[in-house]
Amino acid sequence: MRLALIGAGRIGKVHAQTIDAHPEVTLVGVADFHAPAAEALAAQYGARILSTDAVFEEANIDAVLIASSTPTHADYLEQAARAGKAILCEKPIALDLARTRDALQVLESHPVICALGFNRRHDPQFAALKKAVVEGRIGSLETLSIISRDPAPPPAEYVLASGGLFRDMMIHDFDMVRWLVDEPITYVQATGSCLIDPAIGEAGDIDTAMVTLTTASGRLCHISNSRRACYGYDQRVEAFGSAGMLQVQNESDTRLRFTGEPGQVEEKPHWFFLERYATAYRIEIDDFVRAWRERSAPLAGAQDGLEALRLAEAAERSLHEGRRIALDDIH
Amino acid sequence: MRLALIGAGRIGKVHAQTIDAHPEVTLVGVADFHAPAAEALAAQYGARILSTDAVFEEANIDAVLIASSTPTHADYLEQAARAGKAILCEKPIALDLARTRDALQVLESHPVICALGFNRRHDPQFAALKKAVVEGRIGSLETLSIISRDPAPPPAEYVLASGGLFRDMMIHDFDMVRWLVDEPITYVQATGSCLIDPAIGEAGDIDTAMVTLTTASGRLCHISNSRRACYGYDQRVEAFGSAGMLQVQNESDTRLRFTGEPGQVEEKPHWFFLERYATAYRIEIDDFVRAWRERSAPLAGAQDGLEALRLAEAAERSLHEGRRIALDDIH
Amino acid sequence: MRLALIGAGRIGKVHAQTIDAHPEVTLVGVADFHAPAAEALAAQYGARILSTDAVFEEANIDAVLIASSTPTHADYLEQAARAGKAILCEKPIALDLARTRDALQVLESHPVICALGFNRRHDPQFAALKKAVVEGRIGSLETLSIISRDPAPPPAEYVLASGGLFRDMMIHDFDMVRWLVDEPITYVQATGSCLIDPAIGEAGDIDTAMVTLTTASGRLCHISNSRRACYGYDQRVEAFGSAGMLQVQNESDTRLRFTGEPGQVEEKPHWFFLERYATAYRIEIDDFVRAWRERSAPLAGAQDGLEALRLAEAAERSLHEGRRIALDDIH
Amino acid sequence: MRLALIGAGRIGKVHAQTIDAHPEVTLVGVADFHAPAAEALAAQYGARILSTDAVFEEANIDAVLIASSTPTHADYLEQAARAGKAILCEKPIALDLARTRDALQVLESHPVICALGFNRRHDPQFAALKKAVVEGRIGSLETLSIISRDPAPPPAEYVLASGGLFRDMMIHDFDMVRWLVDEPITYVQATGSCLIDPAIGEAGDIDTAMVTLTTASGRLCHISNSRRACYGYDQRVEAFGSAGMLQVQNESDTRLRFTGEPGQVEEKPHWFFLERYATAYRIEIDDFVRAWRERSAPLAGAQDGLEALRLAEAAERSLHEGRRIALDDIH
Repeated sequence: MRLALIGAGRIGKVHAQTIDAHPEVTLVGVADFHAPAAEALAAQYGARILSTDAVFEEANIDAVLIASSTPTHADYLEQAARAGKAILCEKPIALDLARTRDALQVLESHPVICALGFNRRHDPQFAALKKAVVEGRIGSLETLSIISRDPAPPPAEYVLASGGLFRDMMIHDFDMVRWLVDEPITYVQATGSCLIDPAIGEAGDIDTAMVTLTTASGRLCHISNSRRACYGYDQRVEAFGSAGMLQVQNESDTRLRFTGEPGQVEEKPHWFFLERYATAYRIEIDDFVRAWRERSAPLAGAQDGLEALRLAEAAERSLHEGRRIALDDIH
Repeated sequence: MRLALIGAGRIGKVHAQTIDAHPEVTLVGVADFHAPAAEALAAQYGARILSTDAVFEEANIDAVLIASSTPTHADYLEQAARAGKAILCEKPIALDLARTRDALQVLESHPVICALGFNRRHDPQFAALKKAVVEGRIGSLETLSIISRDPAPPPAEYVLASGGLFRDMMIHDFDMVRWLVDEPITYVQATGSCLIDPAIGEAGDIDTAMVTLTTASGRLCHISNSRRACYGYDQRVEAFGSAGMLQVQNESDTRLRFTGEPGQVEEKPHWFFLERYATAYRIEIDDFVRAWRERSAPLAGAQDGLEALRLAEAAERSLHEGRRIALDDIH
Repeated sequence: MRLALIGAGRIGKVHAQTIDAHPEVTLVGVADFHAPAAEALAAQYGARILSTDAVFEEANIDAVLIASSTPTHADYLEQAARAGKAILCEKPIALDLARTRDALQVLESHPVICALGFNRRHDPQFAALKKAVVEGRIGSLETLSIISRDPAPPPAEYVLASGGLFRDMMIHDFDMVRWLVDEPITYVQATGSCLIDPAIGEAGDIDTAMVTLTTASGRLCHISNSRRACYGYDQRVEAFGSAGMLQVQNESDTRLRFTGEPGQVEEKPHWFFLERYATAYRIEIDDFVRAWRERSAPLAGAQDGLEALRLAEAAERSLHEGRRIALDDIH
Repeated sequence: MRLALIGAGRIGKVHAQTIDAHPEVTLVGVADFHAPAAEALAAQYGARILSTDAVFEEANIDAVLIASSTPTHADYLEQAARAGKAILCEKPIALDLARTRDALQVLESHPVICALGFNRRHDPQFAALKKAVVEGRIGSLETLSIISRDPAPPPAEYVLASGGLFRDMMIHDFDMVRWLVDEPITYVQATGSCLIDPAIGEAGDIDTAMVTLTTASGRLCHISNSRRACYGYDQRVEAFGSAGMLQVQNESDTRLRFTGEPGQVEEKPHWFFLERYATAYRIEIDDFVRAWRERSAPLAGAQDGLEALRLAEAAERSLHEGRRIALDDIH
């Protein structure tokens, strides 16, 4: 697969490294609005510097990885689809439903392989949980609880452009719920507060939130988010069912244990997503290449992006109206 | 302290054993509507069989432990208060707010030491959590999450008389939230399903529930309940704050670990509350005796029973109306 | 069982409390060389103060608990046997083999129930390990590893009178090996150092030791002792076999877990044996009463004391001669 | 670094993959006595097939990785040294001291960078333990305990050629002791049995062993080996000192936890060394390249191979003579 990368920022660098080491993928070129970033990354991996136009025009490019800033995702995705390139797009496609739906329509009329960067689906531990649930290890799934906390809050400027906690942060957890319960969600109930940084509240957002979702068959799902966990990236899931419980636990650099004056001490969890999901990013590329090679569906696609965004919309509306929102009312 | 026990059932037996071993308490007598039960328990501990009237009339009785069936609690509590006896009453005082308020009025006009059996407050692990929170170990508390699951669902007849999951089971968790956050609760949001036993649904109740509470300062609290956990009694609390997280973990008979074909295996949690809270029941009696001796407040009192019941009422209303309920609206 | 206690020191007090709460045992009286100690303890539990002569002479005394200083054990044990009293004797019977054998001969000619205070056999976690091994959960036992560390070293004067680390401290571990492997031990190899307190070395003893034992069928057992573990009493056992491994883990007051700046922190283990083996001491009394009631063997008897002492003798000889010692050579 | 690989077997394949992905190393060619193996591996990574003579003769080869069968190590090492190539040699250099010393003499007269494949030194968890010990986290180190168990015993033919458990398996643990205690070892005491496979005993070897080592300052170290652990590769280290204890724990694929009928279950440890030390093999190559680039010492060198072998010799002699062996007597 000859792949072009759009976006040479933090996540673009992670993907470039994986692609460089991947036996089936060649990093053809790098494009970035900010030329020095593209140049540096291209030089590091012996790739060309490309204009974004060139990415979609060159015939010898099979696939495009969109890792640019969020507001550009939908446009690039549509251009790539029209050019017949396979797409791996960082989430979200767009921050509003209308723009997302438009992009999906282009994908429908120009069907290409399109994977969406819900990286957690590719994490070995979450994948093992999913597999065990599907195999019936806990019998019938009854409740799902997700705790997801970032190590430190973003600056208020970031928050303003992010679409808010539900669209920017909890979107991953909404996708996890959809992927793990594997049945329609019917109701969404949200609460939230600004407890960490008043500037986030002034920007009209929250930094601490709890959302409860109900599925068609009555399963109950809970998501708890915080923008700050002083001990690092907190990423846990508990699936509870008629025959038992499965728990994804935090991971750390090593399992070294110290016992002394302060007690029995193990390491803090990984600091943030780059460390925690390093393996997931590698597997995500594998999955994308496999989907492209086999002309089959990737593990997460554009439709999953739309559905997660609908849940975020519902949560936002529930927060403001103080009542549960039927997902059917989110169009 | 010369104490009379009303109720010789399961929980009455637990208390009788603790009292018998307590150096400061003498079990004077046992009363029970079901005479053989009273006779057996009285014989076992060398106590007298009493009528309930005698319990309140005899001058040499200092205190009454009310462990009879729920519908009798409020009446006995009022009689004990009028007779000037110290009271340890199993929760709840009553299943409805009006009856509970009446009982509290009697206590106001006949002030006696009155402890309510919220046993979890006396558990060493929960007490250590509370202490650490108060001492500021996690900085400012931001979220509280409680998971509470029974090993097996009660029969539907029990459910009918119980007042429902919120009043019968989650009432303990409501009290834990109140005790641990130590500030007014403002809003309650509830969801629930009947996923385990259809007979419970036919009796008009749920067996799986999630409730989210908001405090006056914006803290978020979550409670997850299930009537069945095949692995035993699941009793966990997670307090999260600006400087860290505290977690109460399940307890088991021993910490023996087996590693072999199935993996690395530790014992299941204790089966149910009698095993899990055996120590808490002993400390509860200690606290009652201390309060009586020092003429000071017990750790949990009648007012705590009323407040927990208000939260249960709010949860029930939220469940039916599909919106968050302001606690101020629950009178 | 009407029981007299000889010795009102630290361990005597522990036993007195258990006996007082035991429904089948009455603490008739307390004897102690140091009169005020006997008086205080007798007063606390409403028992009489006895001379040691009276303990053996009074007909209404069924049993004697010998918790006096080590050098007196053998004499009291012989007097009790001759008086036909059931005996629970703190370990060791004596610090040398000859004196111990003499005591055993008296027991042979005056057969009474005689239990020896190897408290660890009664600990629920060790008992669960033993049960699992016997039931074949790890297949054929191949190796056994015991780690046993005290929180702080004793004063050098104590060491001088104690018989040395092997007889005073590791004696418990020797008994654990014998109890758990349940076959003859053939060879003993020992190493040791004085690393903690030079005064212990000047007293001719060691404070850190490792001993390896071989059984008749070739199983290998390892014991590691230290007189100081800054984090508390370290009491672990690992039994390894053809079908898996069983591990006894340290216990602590609660399982509360803190996660924050220093990492993921659980409590230190219990500080010392009174906390760690509180339950074992209660069960030890139960076992003694049961043996007396049923006229059957207690879980640990006088012969077990002799055999553990032979292992200590072998270890001492191995340490000094720098070679493995055949247990058959220890008479 | 232009590197030639000698040996295209199991461990050669592991190294080839790491080298291929390493930005500073080019895999120039592969040599193997068994031609098809060399061809397959060379083809996989686009390298040339080389004769072993060519490896040492070609001027454009900077370094040689010796991963061939043990009896060839010393010869290849000497040829590489004489040819001025940097060397990464799988352990052991040879199975006897004389041959090893000869090789070291060649290295002395032809000084090249020579790293020895003691892979565990490069494992992140062991490295974190070492770092914490050096930084004084446990105060003064007093005892060290290593448990090292393979998942399944090798065939008896392998055992015959392996030099025996001490030289083939425990050699890694001897190196860990040397590396972690960082002071001379004075005495070695060994015991061992054949408990798993009688064929191993008939081949004159043992499959279960315990060795105790004493250092110059009196520290005590214990190693426990078994050729079979049904649950996988058991690799633990416990360092105990005046200020605490550090424990390396087993690692597994994921930390997913199941709680249900059988208890609270976590995954088995990794099955064997390729999974457990995957990261260590990568870091080992990094360290070799760094040493070559900086002309400095690698983390483990040829002298470390000799010293570990002396400990194995001492253990063997101790096993047969039933006494501790002074390391000074092993020449």
